[in-house]
This record gives sequence, structure tokens and C-alpha cells, in this order.
Amino acid sequence: MQQHRHARRGAELVFESVRVLIEPKAELPFEVNRSRKKLNLKIDAVLDHRAFSLRNPEYGAVFRVQAEIVRSFAEFLRAEGFLEVHTSKIVAAGTEGGTSLFKLQYFEQDAFLAQSPQFYKQMLVGAGYERVFEVGFVYRAEDHATSRHINEYLSLDFEMGFIQSYQDVTRLENRMLARMMENLRQNCAEEIETLGATLPDVGEIPEVTLTEALEILARDYGRDTAGMADLDPEGERQLCDYAVKSRGSEFIFVSHYPRSGRPFYTMPDPENPELTLGFDLLFRGLEVTTGSQRIHDYDMLVDSIRRFGMNPDNFGFYLEIFGYSMPPHGGLAIGAERLTQQILGLQNVREASFFPRDRFRITP
Amino acid sequence: MQQHRHARRGAELVFESVRVLIEPKAELPFEVNRSRKKLNLKIDAVLDHRAFSLRNPEYGAVFRVQAEIVRSFAEFLRAEGFLEVHTSKIVAAGTEGGTSLFKLQYFEQDAFLAQSPQFYKQMLVGAGYERVFEVGFVYRAEDHATSRHINEYLSLDFEMGFIQSYQDVTRLENRMLARMMENLRQNCAEEIETLGATLPDVGEIPEVTLTEALEILARDYGRDTAGMADLDPEGERQLCDYAVKSRGSEFIFVSHYPRSGRPFYTMPDPENPELTLGFDLLFRGLEVTTGSQRIHDYDMLVDSIRRFGMNPDNFGFYLEIFGYSMPPHGGLAIGAERLTQQILGLQNVREASFFPRDRFRITP
Repeated sequence: MQQHRHARRGAELVFESVRVLIEPKAELPFEVNRSRKKLNLKIDAVLDHRAFSLRNPEYGAVFRVQAEIVRSFAEFLRAEGFLEVHTSKIVAAGTEGGTSLFKLQYFEQDAFLAQSPQFYKQMLVGAGYERVFEVGFVYRAEDHATSRHINEYLSLDFEMGFIQSYQDVTRLENRMLARMMENLRQNCAEEIETLGATLPDVGEIPEVTLTEALEILARDYGRDTAGMADLDPEGERQLCDYAVKSRGSEFIFVSHYPRSGRPFYTMPDPENPELTLGFDLLFRGLEVTTGSQRIHDYDMLVDSIRRFGMNPDNFGFYLEIFGYSMPPHGGLAIGAERLTQQILGLQNVREASFFPRDRFRITP
Repeated sequence: MQQHRHARRGAELVFESVRVLIEPKAELPFEVNRSRKKLNLKIDAVLDHRAFSLRNPEYGAVFRVQAEIVRSFAEFLRAEGFLEVHTSKIVAAGTEGGTSLFKLQYFEQDAFLAQSPQFYKQMLVGAGYERVFEVGFVYRAEDHATSRHINEYLSLDFEMGFIQSYQDVTRLENRMLARMMENLRQNCAEEIETLGATLPDVGEIPEVTLTEALEILARDYGRDTAGMADLDPEGERQLCDYAVKSRGSEFIFVSHYPRSGRPFYTMPDPENPELTLGFDLLFRGLEVTTGSQRIHDYDMLVDSIRRFGMNPDNFGFYLEIFGYSMPPHGGLAIGAERLTQQILGLQNVREASFFPRDRFRITP
């Protein structure tokens, strides 16, 4: 029995004898107690032997942190009067338009895996719950094969009624993140240390409009932003660099994206109807949240569906409750794996998913 | 504005004037403030107008109770050292055998929706987490169209390592249910009253073996139990009647089901290898939990897969961690909607699902 060189918990066990209960059936695929850095494994080797690789203290610690992230999200929102909900992941049509859907044979019908609980959480605000949150998988049949995309991810969603502004949503997220990092500091100190991670300080998160963000990229980073209607990955990293250096924050909200790039249910900016009251949250160079104030007026919503080239008749089940009146409302969705990845400085989002599903992988 | 006849919260509002902000776009499908009983709606009418029907205090209260059930489950298990996990719902093969799977087009591959997180939660026990729980949807492509079946349901799963007996699992569930009912009594008193429900007292839950259960049905209920290898719905109701009358409990565990009727990973009874250390929990006439001690020995597990007519080569991703040693372990799964239904005395399990999916329904 190999002795540990560091007595991490302040005590060292000395074995006098060892009795073997079960012999391993095969050679171990790699050494379980070496650091990730020394092992230097390709992500596929880690995932092909997933249960075994989680016995490694570093790979395993990721999910103790993720569980605390999810718990913090839920606990904070419950204390703010949100109801936890679970809405169906089998749907008749997509929420973000018709693309990127996984198709399913549902008895005699065609069905799809839900891209988000968007329609349902809005309907439940209108159903009288006013504030709801959901922790659940969502599905995107996107062809990407990058270190920051998986095709099934855990979405931390909330939706809140009777807001005055989309900033009621961003401010609530700001407070939630501050609490989450406090909880991680208290309850996951050992895992954070094991992973060599640094928790961010969450003060008042700065906000810029997309227009301002593009000006910053042009001015401070020499980017040619002509014609840019969104931030590219490089722009996300540059804006986060700006946020740290000029605003002292590892987080930054970007708001007022153009209407053409946001879903039909996003509230247009009353001061410039080509823009929206939609926002993203960037953290350490990556988008970790998308949210907005939503359209709550029935006629405006029907117009918006048409404007996006879709037929309101196909959205009857969603529109009905708007017809019986809907409060001003807004919400957001956080990718749990991405947030975990960014907090812990993981190289690949797959490290933050127990059994990730990507372009090619459906096992283990 | 219609005045409420009952001042439920001890105060009555008298309106001096009312300003209409939004006119409804359509006639209301039914009166929102009448009792379920007076409305006497068919379940399809309730579900076709789901968001609207939830504005009814009775239909709406169901999900405040369900949220507290789910919260209680998670909170209790966290305090017992369980880690919350989320495992993929897109799988390459079924856990309970090859039937009852929804098929999915996953890029170029065929995939299926998970019937349970069974393999994954066992693998995570073996990964070193030792105790894990999951709250997530599971999928059964079963043809049933009854008041107690839906095809997508919220499964409350846990799995625990280093057990001495399957009764470590049943005892933990017993304590969890006692805490859950306490929480409901404290935190959902108004909803319980609105729904006219009676919470069960949870003392020490009695247990009988299936053999004993069948003897009771024959002796006390005149059933011809020859050849019965499981309880039928009538038998479940009769055994619960027995449990109330003879054992003073609305819950009863039934254990030692025959091996042929339980999944391959169920631990055989060492005293009679034709039986298993598997159990169900019945409550008010319905099965609400299935669980067991699992096979943890690699060779026994491989034999069991073969005995069930399957090929161990197809289970390599699951078997691997057993080959690197696995502790004795067991666990269970509770159907959240069924438990909600039984606690609240709902006529149809669909009332306990926001957006139920059944044989014919995929909207709203």
C-alpha cells in the first residue's frame, strides 16, 4: 500500500496489514492518484473510463463543486419566493425556431427534445406562480465540436413576473452569484484547493450595451467591428479582459442585442425597436448566461412571431395564457457545466459533465 | 370584481375602483375560482388549458406540494451525506432490457431516452461518491393509458454504498418519508387544506415478503393467488387495506420478489436464489417506490446478464467499474408524480405533472 506523502487532513494512517477483498479484473487504465497535469490525459481517455477517472481526486472534486453550484442556485431562489418546477423535455416544436432539434419517435407522432423550458416557465409565471425556477437538461442538436459545447446540458433557469426592467433580472443574478461564491468558499474549500481554482469576487457586476462593447473592442483592442451584431469568442475574451482591467470585475453584462439575433419572445427596446432588452453575462471570457425581459403583451407577441417568419397558429398552446393577461416578466438561463468550467478553470466543458453527450459520444 | 365569500387569510379587501390593464382575448374556458368538484372537468379539459387551469387554487396547489416533496427528498439526503448528481438522459441502450424505449435520431447514431439513471448512479457509487441522488425525468415508451401511468415522469433516485442489507435502503426511505410529511405539515398546511388532503402518519413502516403478501390476500381477501408472481393493482389495494387495518400503517414494504420479475442487477437472496433482495413500497393502494440491494460482484453480475439472455459485451461501459471493485450497495426510485398523487388523493397522476406526456399527448 503506497503511503501518501501529504497528510491532507492532518493525520496519516499507517497500515499494519491489508486484506484484499476483490482483485481488479483488468489493468487500471491510468494511475488514479496522480494529478491531472501529470496524467496529461486526452479528454476521450478520461470519458471512456468515466467512473474510474472520477476516483481521481481532481476529476471527482469537480462534481462536488457543481452540486454546490446547483444547490446554491435553488436555495437562493427559494428564499426569494421562487417555486421549483419540472417541465416536459418532449415537445411538439422548438422554442428558438425550428433548427437544432433532436427528433424523436413518440408513438405515432414526431416529437423533439426541448431546447429550453422557455415557453413553459413563462406559462407558469402566467399560471399565477409569478416566480419559478427549473434545474433540468436541455438539448441542442448543434454540429459544434468545441471545448465549450455539449449537446445535452444542465440549464439553470428562472423566470420572474412583475418586473420593472430587465435589470431586475440581472440584479437578482448578481446577488445570486455573490451568494453562490460565498457558499463555495465555505462548503467547497477543499475541492477548490484540490483543483487549484480561484473563486471570483462578485461585487456589483458592470454592464455595457453591445454597442458600447463593440466600441471598447475597436478602441482598446484594435478590432474591426464593422458589421458585428454579436460578440465572437475572441471579443468575449477581450471584453472580459477589459472588465477586469477597467472595471475590476471578472463578470460583465452585455445588453441591448439587436432584435434579429434574439428569440421572438424578447422584449424590444422601447427607445430603439431594432434593439432588445436582452442580455448575456460573460465570465472569464465565456458567455455563461442568456436572459431578457420578455414580451408580455399578446398582440405584440403575435406580431413578433410573424415578424420572425413563423405562424402564430402553431403557438396556440403558448399564446393562450397571454390572452388571459400576463404580467411584465423576464428571466434567464445559466449553463451549469459552463459555469462550473469557468469557476474551476477547466480546459473542456466535458470535464464538468458526468456523462457528456457531444457530436460523437453517447457512451458511457 | 367578485368578492370572495371567505376571507381565507383573515382579511377582506374592499375595492373602491378597478382599472382594467388588459382585456382577455377570449372567453375563459372555465371559471377559475370554482372548486374542482363543482367544475367537474375531464382531465383533457384541464390539460388542454394547462396554464389557465393552474390559476385555479386547487390545481395550482398541487405543485407547491410537489416542490416541497422534491425539496424534502434532496435536503434529507444531503444531510445524510448524499451528493446530488445529474446523469445523461440520452443513452445507447436500455437499463431494464430492450423494450419500452423511445428511439431518438442522434446525429448519425440511434439512441434512446433513459428509462432510469440506474447504471449511472451505480457507477457513481463506484466512482467513489458512495452516496448519490438524482432528481430527473425518465422515459417509458409503454402503451398503458391509465390514470396512474405517464410516459415521462420525475424520478427521485438514490443509491448508497457500503450497506449491510437492503433494509439499510428501506430504513433510510422510512426516515426520509417521515421527515417529508413533517415538512409538508409545516410548510404546505394551506395547500393541504385547499386540496382537502390528509397527510399520512409515518411510523415504522411494516414489511412483508411477497410470499407473505400473497398468503394475506388468499387468507383475508379470498384471492386465488396460485401462480401470482407479483401483486396486481387489486392486490396492491388489498394489501394496503391490510396494512392499515392490521399494522396501523398507510405504507407497506413488500420484499423478496422472484428473480424473473426484477432487473438483472438485483441481488439474489442468498437463502433462496430464485428470490431477490428487491422491494416495492406501497402507499394507499399504489406502488410508489421500487428498490433493491444490487449485485456488486463482477462475476455474479456478468452471470446475471447472461442468465437474462443478454450479452455482457454490450454492458462494458457499466461493468468496467465493477471490475475495479465495487462496494455492496443498493438504492431505490420514487415516482414523484405518483407520490404526489397518493399524498393528495388525486384521481389522475396527470394532475401531478405540469405538462404530462401520455400515449397521445405531447402538447401543451
